[in-house]
Amino acid sequence: MIIITRGGITDSELDGIRERVEQLGLRTHVSRGEQRVVIGCIGDEAVLREVPWRTLPGVESVMPVLQPYKLAARAFAAGPTAVRIGDSRGTSFARDQFTVIAGPCSVEGPDMLALTARRVAASGARLLRGGAYKPRTSPYSFRGLGEAALGMLVEVRAETGLPVVTEVMDPRQVDLVAEHVDVLQVGARNMQNFSLLSELGRIRRPVLLKRGLSATIEELLMSAEHIMAHGNMDVILCERGIRTFEPATRNTLDLAALPVLRRETHLPVVVDPSHAAGRGDLVAPLAWAAVAAGADGLLVEVHPDPPNALSDGDQSLDLDAFDRLMVGVEAFRKAALAVAGSASGQALVEAVA
Amino acid sequence: MIIITRGGITDSELDGIRERVEQLGLRTHVSRGEQRVVIGCIGDEAVLREVPWRTLPGVESVMPVLQPYKLAARAFAAGPTAVRIGDSRGTSFARDQFTVIAGPCSVEGPDMLALTARRVAASGARLLRGGAYKPRTSPYSFRGLGEAALGMLVEVRAETGLPVVTEVMDPRQVDLVAEHVDVLQVGARNMQNFSLLSELGRIRRPVLLKRGLSATIEELLMSAEHIMAHGNMDVILCERGIRTFEPATRNTLDLAALPVLRRETHLPVVVDPSHAAGRGDLVAPLAWAAVAAGADGLLVEVHPDPPNALSDGDQSLDLDAFDRLMVGVEAFRKAALAVAGSASGQALVEAVA
Amino acid sequence: MIIITRGGITDSELDGIRERVEQLGLRTHVSRGEQRVVIGCIGDEAVLREVPWRTLPGVESVMPVLQPYKLAARAFAAGPTAVRIGDSRGTSFARDQFTVIAGPCSVEGPDMLALTARRVAASGARLLRGGAYKPRTSPYSFRGLGEAALGMLVEVRAETGLPVVTEVMDPRQVDLVAEHVDVLQVGARNMQNFSLLSELGRIRRPVLLKRGLSATIEELLMSAEHIMAHGNMDVILCERGIRTFEPATRNTLDLAALPVLRRETHLPVVVDPSHAAGRGDLVAPLAWAAVAAGADGLLVEVHPDPPNALSDGDQSLDLDAFDRLMVGVEAFRKAALAVAGSASGQALVEAVA
Amino acid sequence: MIIITRGGITDSELDGIRERVEQLGLRTHVSRGEQRVVIGCIGDEAVLREVPWRTLPGVESVMPVLQPYKLAARAFAAGPTAVRIGDSRGTSFARDQFTVIAGPCSVEGPDMLALTARRVAASGARLLRGGAYKPRTSPYSFRGLGEAALGMLVEVRAETGLPVVTEVMDPRQVDLVAEHVDVLQVGARNMQNFSLLSELGRIRRPVLLKRGLSATIEELLMSAEHIMAHGNMDVILCERGIRTFEPATRNTLDLAALPVLRRETHLPVVVDPSHAAGRGDLVAPLAWAAVAAGADGLLVEVHPDPPNALSDGDQSLDLDAFDRLMVGVEAFRKAALAVAGSASGQALVEAVA
Repeated sequence: MIIITRGGITDSELDGIRERVEQLGLRTHVSRGEQRVVIGCIGDEAVLREVPWRTLPGVESVMPVLQPYKLAARAFAAGPTAVRIGDSRGTSFARDQFTVIAGPCSVEGPDMLALTARRVAASGARLLRGGAYKPRTSPYSFRGLGEAALGMLVEVRAETGLPVVTEVMDPRQVDLVAEHVDVLQVGARNMQNFSLLSELGRIRRPVLLKRGLSATIEELLMSAEHIMAHGNMDVILCERGIRTFEPATRNTLDLAALPVLRRETHLPVVVDPSHAAGRGDLVAPLAWAAVAAGADGLLVEVHPDPPNALSDGDQSLDLDAFDRLMVGVEAFRKAALAVAGSASGQALVEAVA
Repeated sequence: MIIITRGGITDSELDGIRERVEQLGLRTHVSRGEQRVVIGCIGDEAVLREVPWRTLPGVESVMPVLQPYKLAARAFAAGPTAVRIGDSRGTSFARDQFTVIAGPCSVEGPDMLALTARRVAASGARLLRGGAYKPRTSPYSFRGLGEAALGMLVEVRAETGLPVVTEVMDPRQVDLVAEHVDVLQVGARNMQNFSLLSELGRIRRPVLLKRGLSATIEELLMSAEHIMAHGNMDVILCERGIRTFEPATRNTLDLAALPVLRRETHLPVVVDPSHAAGRGDLVAPLAWAAVAAGADGLLVEVHPDPPNALSDGDQSLDLDAFDRLMVGVEAFRKAALAVAGSASGQALVEAVA
Repeated sequence: MIIITRGGITDSELDGIRERVEQLGLRTHVSRGEQRVVIGCIGDEAVLREVPWRTLPGVESVMPVLQPYKLAARAFAAGPTAVRIGDSRGTSFARDQFTVIAGPCSVEGPDMLALTARRVAASGARLLRGGAYKPRTSPYSFRGLGEAALGMLVEVRAETGLPVVTEVMDPRQVDLVAEHVDVLQVGARNMQNFSLLSELGRIRRPVLLKRGLSATIEELLMSAEHIMAHGNMDVILCERGIRTFEPATRNTLDLAALPVLRRETHLPVVVDPSHAAGRGDLVAPLAWAAVAAGADGLLVEVHPDPPNALSDGDQSLDLDAFDRLMVGVEAFRKAALAVAGSASGQALVEAVA
Repeated sequence: MIIITRGGITDSELDGIRERVEQLGLRTHVSRGEQRVVIGCIGDEAVLREVPWRTLPGVESVMPVLQPYKLAARAFAAGPTAVRIGDSRGTSFARDQFTVIAGPCSVEGPDMLALTARRVAASGARLLRGGAYKPRTSPYSFRGLGEAALGMLVEVRAETGLPVVTEVMDPRQVDLVAEHVDVLQVGARNMQNFSLLSELGRIRRPVLLKRGLSATIEELLMSAEHIMAHGNMDVILCERGIRTFEPATRNTLDLAALPVLRRETHLPVVVDPSHAAGRGDLVAPLAWAAVAAGADGLLVEVHPDPPNALSDGDQSLDLDAFDRLMVGVEAFRKAALAVAGSASGQALVEAVA
């Protein structure tokens, strides 16, 4: 950490700042510029982060030198992490694969779920999504079938072989949901629900962690760090749009997060174009753009009959539209691999970087 | 709800839309403009909100006519709601009072808490805040003393008579926390933690609900509606800044939310200038501005020794600074009452509106 | 336009609103819902837009039914507009082409410009960019070589055959710049500089109009409308990122603007990944994503020696990096065409929409 | 400036960075932390700002130590600047006064202007505003009466003695407008219209500079610096709301900008609640909050008949409402002075800071 002092700092103020740093076990290195004295702190930066430096007389600002996350940082792992899914036949989220999750916003019944599963699998999806517990802005909205939906997901997995993903909203649901499904999803509104993240750190199932509507990339990684620090290293990150002033879309998909995350973390990253767009007609171009920008996979809402969906119908694709989307995904994925000159999506980005 | 159709809509598309509305028990009223047909839906708008209208052929957009909240809406109550606090001697949040909550970010021990309580009470605060469970971006940060802190709050309340406020983060903590404290606070990151809101709807304690970093005013009211729909009508709203592009402050305090909320809801509204600013030196002017804009109270972080605070020291006021802040609050409050020509803060706003 | 009234509106208030509409030459159509009266206005909506409806007693809100732009609207043209560039051999911005503009932020001298031009042309760029007048946040920064730079652009065009693009900041410069270059660029900060837009409407050169940092898509189209309403129909739109809270990138590239603009306008749209990213290492993945999302072209900053560039060096690609970027563009462009099953980028998007 | 290097930097990379700094005439000071080498640059930071440091091998990030503005910086002046207005009888913008500008969005004719002037003066306004040239999002909107309006402003000034303020949009208008009015206003959309700012730097009239919709406080000060660097030191800053995701108001008024600007600059700061709110009913509470937060004045839109205003009627106050607003301003201003214990608004803020 670097501490920048105010103009005209006194010697006693400077000594006070240095003492505080040194009491915490670090050394200080003072650099006197023409207008400012700068104090470099040498040692473990983490212990400095909690100190309210601006309250010390003479401090103008501080600048951390290192990232606040460790387990999620790219340097922590020898290479990109592959997150393997359950007992499944080789499904994983990894840089040399491209893994698509598709399915309805909510599980509405066994038939619609089975139909969707068969069709998205035929189109190339590798996992099935379906909500059992739905966070809804209004207390009067449909909130999911709950435990019954978990049973339906299990049945459809048995029938189709597709691993299943569902959202968990409450720390009390974690064990139950983890018994049933292969990947537990944390929704955008719960990205900083630390009680939930702690519970997810204690299970042995991969977690799909969605970026919050107003979360920075660094905060997303800190939430992954929460899960990892509690013991679960299998975290898949998901970019799903951030809140901005633009009203034409529900959120603004931040595809630059993909190459930024590749620099910063070893964790795989998928993109959810459905929630970003909030409109079905924008989902395919955003999905294709995600492939080109280096995503490791997609999360797409698909419903056999969007006009009659119980939730998120406006942004859901029907089965044929999803099939057309996947034809495009395949074409862009091939282009991406060709550009990279190898099977590695990582190289795709680094070709120019 | 009003449904606006696309240019060149066919009769059969129009019929399809009308049938969908009428199946839901409403009547339709068709208005043909020069370029667009508009369908007015007459009846209970709530049942239309869940329908994915944009997926129906011929629909361009829809516009709700009514607000989505009911219990929180101003029209629901005869007048402004006064939220009474516990067994206390008349403390409440109401338009004809001005109620200040002050205290440390975290309860760090019994002595600092008692000292703070005595001093903030002497300066005019009516409730004591203190965190037992702290949501922290980093898993490596101090996370509060937990249940021990609840005990300290109870002791200091017994000593000083100040009702106490603390944050609850986890639905499993709700009963325990409600046994100990007078007001349960929902932090900004949990404003849409619906599991937590549902639990808070089932208790008999007031809830202080903070606006999320990227929540609209309407979404804040919908979260209040969640608590109220589960049975607890004692909700105090809190504006604490929203996330914007401006880096000079941690968040941007949205004081226009005060007069907007007065129009929209009967619930009392307080302002937290500490979290909005993220810097102690901005807290007092923002607090005074909140008084002038019509707040019903404040929530201010105060610590006897901010440079050694375990959390949020940068934005905490020391005891003397809080006292000076309260001198200003008193002066501006008197001005507000004088302007209104009565004890009613409501009239203050409506003098011009 | 639809006017929604307040609950409990009186007959005389309703009459007052209707009279105001009818005085403006429109008819009204009243629809009485259970809780609100809604007034549909039939006739030319444009004349209603200027009226401060909310000041009329009884009005709660108004909702325009039509878009405020006409010449820029998709319905205005029979199909996508192709903007042809100068006397050049067939260069144009159009849906069935993909046209890349590349070059330095600033023209720094004749040699660096000529070298850059030859190399970007060899890599596939069709136009050369280079700043003569630079808008700079600081008055102490390098502000461009001005008229001398215009001369260098003309010379390099003569040598290489590449049409040239440069930014114009001041209405007094428009005629001079238009004499020299093929496309006049309006920077993001000037998107609502209406004096400048009016002047650009009077010339016979295409205008490349960049989206403002905080401009909505609708406002971008309204600025295009300003140019078009003054007589110049050759407008190329440019998405270059919007300002958000995310600090990892200079701006957040909004690629959803591409399919939205395809629905809304007949004008071609290019993407500037350089200014959005603010970092060279993110430019290629964003450029490729733009291709996949349906852009009609790119605008990329390229410098022969970025570490010694006089402006925007951090985000400029060197000549080799640009060549690698273009290899990727070619591959993704082929994929896009294959997906569309035709040469039409329009169909690419509509395949799923 | 401080340069933070990447982990594992080589000696030759380090030498390269130091050489670049030293070539620019500064000295370097190397501080080796446990994981990073940090280079402090000693000397004139301004020359380093233009260098694209991130393109140099081994550089991770850079951090300026000083603010980029000089003339606008608080340290540049001995105390707060008082901007005196024209030949007027003592009107100025200064910390020990509170100066209100009021009047119509657009000058619509001599009678409405004179009526407004007399009434706002009677209510306590010290300057009259009125638009002659209006920036309008739509090319089809009313754009002001132009030069005729300037003449009306001059006449009404002669009659009432009120100095007049009007907006200038085009560098070609600057001399003409400066001949007629006392203060030239730069609108939010033109805050970074550097051609215009340069022209305004050459005149001898005060400039009222409004913050851009998406401008940071630092960028606002850099735009003031542009004007000042060209020779005109009489700049009045204006906070008028920033663009955020909240739809309930047109913009989000950032009142924390007031105490931040007091720390950073010696220039006076006024607040425009009308444009921030976009709704008349919110103007008074925001105006009062601005007083409490330490504003040096206000800019308020007032129209004798808002429902028939040609522009901005929705947010304009009528004459009686403005009078009531001013009664409140007076009361809050007295409270502010009482709190400060002196006539100095500066002390008001510093009482707690």
